[in-house]
Amino acid sequence: LANEQTEALHTDLRLYTPAEIADLLESLPLAERQAVAEEIDPEVMPDVLSEMQVGTRSTITETLDLETLTASINALPEPYAVELLDGLPEELADEIRESLDPKARQRLEATLEWEEGSAGRLMHVDEVSVRTGITLATIQRYLRFLKHVPTNSDGLMIVDREGFYLGKVSFAAILTHPPETLVESVMDRNAVAVQGDSSEEEVARLFEQRDLLSVAVVDELGMLVGRISIDDVVDVIRQMADEQMMHMANLHELDDTFGPVLPSARRRAVWLGINLLTAFLASWVIGLFQGALEKIVALAVLMPIVSSMGGITGSQTLALVIRGLSLGTISSSNARQLAMKELAVGTLNGVLWAVVVAGVTMVWFHDYALGAVIGVALVLNMGIAALSGWGLPLLLTRYGQDPAISGSVLLTTVTDVVGFMGFLGLATLLLL
Amino acid sequence: LANEQTEALHTDLRLYTPAEIADLLESLPLAERQAVAEEIDPEVMPDVLSEMQVGTRSTITETLDLETLTASINALPEPYAVELLDGLPEELADEIRESLDPKARQRLEATLEWEEGSAGRLMHVDEVSVRTGITLATIQRYLRFLKHVPTNSDGLMIVDREGFYLGKVSFAAILTHPPETLVESVMDRNAVAVQGDSSEEEVARLFEQRDLLSVAVVDELGMLVGRISIDDVVDVIRQMADEQMMHMANLHELDDTFGPVLPSARRRAVWLGINLLTAFLASWVIGLFQGALEKIVALAVLMPIVSSMGGITGSQTLALVIRGLSLGTISSSNARQLAMKELAVGTLNGVLWAVVVAGVTMVWFHDYALGAVIGVALVLNMGIAALSGWGLPLLLTRYGQDPAISGSVLLTTVTDVVGFMGFLGLATLLLL
Repeated sequence: LANEQTEALHTDLRLYTPAEIADLLESLPLAERQAVAEEIDPEVMPDVLSEMQVGTRSTITETLDLETLTASINALPEPYAVELLDGLPEELADEIRESLDPKARQRLEATLEWEEGSAGRLMHVDEVSVRTGITLATIQRYLRFLKHVPTNSDGLMIVDREGFYLGKVSFAAILTHPPETLVESVMDRNAVAVQGDSSEEEVARLFEQRDLLSVAVVDELGMLVGRISIDDVVDVIRQMADEQMMHMANLHELDDTFGPVLPSARRRAVWLGINLLTAFLASWVIGLFQGALEKIVALAVLMPIVSSMGGITGSQTLALVIRGLSLGTISSSNARQLAMKELAVGTLNGVLWAVVVAGVTMVWFHDYALGAVIGVALVLNMGIAALSGWGLPLLLTRYGQDPAISGSVLLTTVTDVVGFMGFLGLATLLLL
Repeated sequence: LANEQTEALHTDLRLYTPAEIADLLESLPLAERQAVAEEIDPEVMPDVLSEMQVGTRSTITETLDLETLTASINALPEPYAVELLDGLPEELADEIRESLDPKARQRLEATLEWEEGSAGRLMHVDEVSVRTGITLATIQRYLRFLKHVPTNSDGLMIVDREGFYLGKVSFAAILTHPPETLVESVMDRNAVAVQGDSSEEEVARLFEQRDLLSVAVVDELGMLVGRISIDDVVDVIRQMADEQMMHMANLHELDDTFGPVLPSARRRAVWLGINLLTAFLASWVIGLFQGALEKIVALAVLMPIVSSMGGITGSQTLALVIRGLSLGTISSSNARQLAMKELAVGTLNGVLWAVVVAGVTMVWFHDYALGAVIGVALVLNMGIAALSGWGLPLLLTRYGQDPAISGSVLLTTVTDVVGFMGFLGLATLLLL
């Protein structure tokens, strides 16, 4: 697709799937993007909007009229309709909600009862369910009467008379067993269901761990309320990974690659400002040692080495811990052992590279004491960096903060302060 | 799971799915991990191994005897068997290959003909296919005769007499149409197939863009050779995101969170060494201006601010471009526009924060000229940082390098060198 986009502007958009059109729109600068959006068939627009990222989508929805937006929300499955509505200005969203057809509105309100980021928001309420006590032949007659099943379903949910979830029967099971078989003898009673208020992350982990294609959603009483299918979970997995990566690079998750300059600049300014505070703190620490710097100018030449090596060491541990926390492999029972291991790795590398740096320093500045000082400062900073890369994300998580967002800035603060303080402090004590 | 792991050591492992046992093993330190591995039912071992990450898996396989390993490889679907075999020492792998049962060996060799990282390596060769010209009733009789279909299949592939791929019929379609219907009237002729030599990344993108559950794999002639199902693609998506994240944090993708210290230290030492070269280069640049630093010690105090703000600006653009390249939204046709936008964002923020830093500098050091110099150096470095964050990954990609691996080190080199050179150079010219 990537190379075809310029030509695509002049070819028939109908050749592309909604997801491909969404990708195309996201790869265009604002003006062209809105021009192409006008060419999109109104029938396809709902699906295109549902495939776009939140940040980019708003640049399209702001050009659409009320009618197209309402039609889109009527046509979309609940999770997408809700997400789209959430991205609109409050007033417009209210206006659309009032003009929806009653059935769509009812389904939407049922979905909206669940919190953002929960399984309830992710589910489709159009699932087909059957009761126990019937044969596979009866199920087949029912399905032939319905004439189609919801997209990407792999089976039917089984409920009792009151609507309580009992299990699942896969299409494969229906097809491979004799028609006179009772559904209860082929249904999977162990098929897990998720609570509507489980988090998206829990749902994604469950799909990955059990290689599921779809899962039933139940309310707190165990009544079947909907179905989550894997294609929506793939979007969640992709989005979670994407947000983590952007946060770790000091980017806002809504940053739009080809979007307008001002909102991008504003979002990034926040991170640059926070980083500037860190940088000023580091400068203040250096400023404490102006006397030493005036006497030994080599200190100014060498000091970035100490902070930089600490920064890399810390960020290696930080990334490993953030990853382990998001995969669920790090917990209170193994955290201490991990600290020991990371400290050992950091210190080992500290000693290794301290020897190299000390050697180079002795040759470069013909000063053995200076070499010894930078070596000791390096080991110290790299050890503390490893411990901070371990401790900061755990601490942030305990206080409900996302370690991917603020972890790296806090870590840099530590490695800069310890790096400069250690090196310049030792130099002041030992060399002056 | 995370909180239960200590207890799990003492409870029955049979309560867990293979994926959950794999997660448990990955969250244990080496000694305990191998102790728990010994408790695992040999029947379940193949599935547990297939769910583990390559780096962690080798710590388990090295404790297994030849018999268990051979049984595992006999039992596993091809993609997992191949991956497992690839992770073993050459000699052991050869020995196992010779003792495999002939059918498993044949299937394995068919898979091994495809290159690593290709769709062929990802596919299952156990797909069930049918020919055109038959009714849905006939298909159902056939399926009842087979008694089961491969796990996680959502339909059957349709081939002609010679085995050429024609399309797909979903289980849902079989169930919702009358039994006398001919398969060709309900099959999806537009169901895409992927070439066995397509890359994993292409396959993953296709699944995401078209919300697929499974896809046919064909050879260069169009003959059906296998099937890829979405649960395997989910693993690819997760792994791709994970590797990108680890590379951007200067980690090797095989780094094992709870693994032994020495291999971890060795892998990370490489990145620290490369970073040290960068740091020495920066020191050398600073060294060129020792005269200026001796005369104005404030330069040493302030210089980290210039390099740090450049580093953040550059890494924001770098992450955005790496992401766009991996999502396929950045191409030669829009790269230049992106450069303009990033330069504008970087420069705007440069000017904003330059004013702040210049103001603070003037107040702190009572030196207007010094404030002006650091302001100009900041704008310069942040502009060049944005351009480098844009250009480096594009250049690396053009030369076949993964920008996530070396992008950040190269970027730091640029922002450090330009930052120190700009600030200290301007100071030498204007303040001395």
